[in-house]
Amino acid sequence: MTIERDGFDYAARLDRARAELRKTGIDVLLASVGADLPYLTGYEAMPLERLTMAVIPADGDAVLVVPELEAPRVAVRDGVFSLRAWGETDDPVAIVAGLVGAPMRAAITDQTWSVFLLELQTAMPATRFLSARPISAALRLRKEPAEVTRLRLAAEAVDRVAARLAQVRFSGRTEKSLSDQVAAMTVEEGSDVATFKIVASGPNAASPHHQAAGRIIQTGDPVVVDFGGKVGGYCSDTTRTFHVGQPTAEYRRVYDVVRAAQEAGVAAARPGVAAEAVDAAARRVIADAGYGAFFIHRLGHGIGLEAHEDPYLVAGNTLALQPGMAFSVEPGIYLPGRFGVRIEDIVVCTEDGAQRLNESTRQLVVVD
Amino acid sequence: MTIERDGFDYAARLDRARAELRKTGIDVLLASVGADLPYLTGYEAMPLERLTMAVIPADGDAVLVVPELEAPRVAVRDGVFSLRAWGETDDPVAIVAGLVGAPMRAAITDQTWSVFLLELQTAMPATRFLSARPISAALRLRKEPAEVTRLRLAAEAVDRVAARLAQVRFSGRTEKSLSDQVAAMTVEEGSDVATFKIVASGPNAASPHHQAAGRIIQTGDPVVVDFGGKVGGYCSDTTRTFHVGQPTAEYRRVYDVVRAAQEAGVAAARPGVAAEAVDAAARRVIADAGYGAFFIHRLGHGIGLEAHEDPYLVAGNTLALQPGMAFSVEPGIYLPGRFGVRIEDIVVCTEDGAQRLNESTRQLVVVD
Repeated sequence: MTIERDGFDYAARLDRARAELRKTGIDVLLASVGADLPYLTGYEAMPLERLTMAVIPADGDAVLVVPELEAPRVAVRDGVFSLRAWGETDDPVAIVAGLVGAPMRAAITDQTWSVFLLELQTAMPATRFLSARPISAALRLRKEPAEVTRLRLAAEAVDRVAARLAQVRFSGRTEKSLSDQVAAMTVEEGSDVATFKIVASGPNAASPHHQAAGRIIQTGDPVVVDFGGKVGGYCSDTTRTFHVGQPTAEYRRVYDVVRAAQEAGVAAARPGVAAEAVDAAARRVIADAGYGAFFIHRLGHGIGLEAHEDPYLVAGNTLALQPGMAFSVEPGIYLPGRFGVRIEDIVVCTEDGAQRLNESTRQLVVVD
Repeated sequence: MTIERDGFDYAARLDRARAELRKTGIDVLLASVGADLPYLTGYEAMPLERLTMAVIPADGDAVLVVPELEAPRVAVRDGVFSLRAWGETDDPVAIVAGLVGAPMRAAITDQTWSVFLLELQTAMPATRFLSARPISAALRLRKEPAEVTRLRLAAEAVDRVAARLAQVRFSGRTEKSLSDQVAAMTVEEGSDVATFKIVASGPNAASPHHQAAGRIIQTGDPVVVDFGGKVGGYCSDTTRTFHVGQPTAEYRRVYDVVRAAQEAGVAAARPGVAAEAVDAAARRVIADAGYGAFFIHRLGHGIGLEAHEDPYLVAGNTLALQPGMAFSVEPGIYLPGRFGVRIEDIVVCTEDGAQRLNESTRQLVVVD
């Protein structure tokens, strides 16, 4: 099934952006590569050396500055934004500076390449540039129902992969081979695209962002499989840790601790609770079991058009959860040189709690 | 075949970077996402919200600042750089600022996210930040023989795909279906990964960066297929325009003009010639045939660890070509609403000319 990205009300989103700009005393939003631009316009900039940038004044019409050869890719939306194509010998930074006009406070989206920010700063020395992250967060933190639908479809697709993995032979093949199969299944099960596929076996499972490579998976290995794709532009991200053959008592204990921590995190998530408190609830379970030093990352990250976005569930983030926020809950224990376990679901904050979008089994699965 | 990225002399590359910094009066190079970091250290930063940044002083030891959970991914090279892992509640910008020390001139790699540049500017208000592009270009413009070997292997892999495409049925299927097959073949034929696969049929062929979608390819269509992958970290990028069924006389004429322009571009490339002169040589052929207004992009771009990098073959770029420079030569004619043709090879500047790395046929290929 293909869910189109379109069908969102981009004019309304741009109006919300303008309202947010006025509220925060910012005169213009400059959006380039990353998810803010497609969120606001339906168009995603190619991450290349030719500048694509939407100029969105707090009180004025939005203009998308785009390389001439990419202009035919843009679905122009009358009354939403206009297009300003630039040719190969034009200076796109001068065009953006001309559209911005007088010196002011400009917010620039986080993933915009530094080379363009430096050029804009040179072209507009009296303008103060700020991170657009607060604007992005205000707009994108609470998902619309149509966004949650896409996140749910994306989650269901990877859940079907997780269920199939229980029937797959793990031992005797490389991590890379299994990783490629996970990516293929992610598409077969309904994702538009597979975006990542961590397969970390044996001692590699202690490396949270391990890159699947040539290690041959063996009986006795735990295997962390952390993967995702996109449906209609929205991301999936789930982790299950499988065990090849019967595990030791120690592994079962660690697995059970991670699973209990994951339950505690999901149970703690509800409106009004601080993001850091959800992290703390899961972390406490792991610390109480004596593994606190081995849970070396935050509990989770927001998810939507990006695999990682606000809100982050991390100590120090006092943001209060609100209905519609979507994020991962993914505690792990990593014993260097030995093994690791991680369990991850995407959950959405509801009116009175949090609902998991991932529902593949979290019980210990033994594979061959 | 898998060619490892490793085997390069990173210590020597860092020394060249330091020499270039001293020559240009820059005190420190800050390298984050993008190709400069892997070029200098063998490590590629994950393009995520946690900062990864190498701090490379002109007169001092290089330090790679990396998120703690990604630290196990890093192949530490003793005597080349040291590692500074930061935990989830640390401030990586403060760590980088501490390593930089006194106010100075800092070059920052082009693709570094703006959010980090803004934070670094706030943390180091007396430091002047500059684009690292001149440093990157000085280091990476002339490929080492081992880099050319990888570019050649990457080119040969996509040439085999181009040859197989002549036997593939085009008509009656969607662009997306053919695009997926091109990506699969790119890996089957020896690429480590397929990175892009433009399939633009019929009137879509007039959109140079068209995104393959649901259009069904029909008899009478030209089909621009522009695709690439990587071998050992180095990119391929080739374009062939196929025709489904017998073409019209007009199409043949346009095809022949593009082919002649491509020949003229390759023939013009040799040491000492300005990059813009190569563009002009190909452009003249198209302009003389009356299609000048329909060749709407530069002639080519450099290629290496990135699909697009210096040198750019474009009006205004007076850079003189030197042996070891690698770039695309890819003229096109795009008739809006009707059709388009593009032919692209990667070439390497030699001591006395330029050598094509792509050698699949440039003759007009008619497919079913």
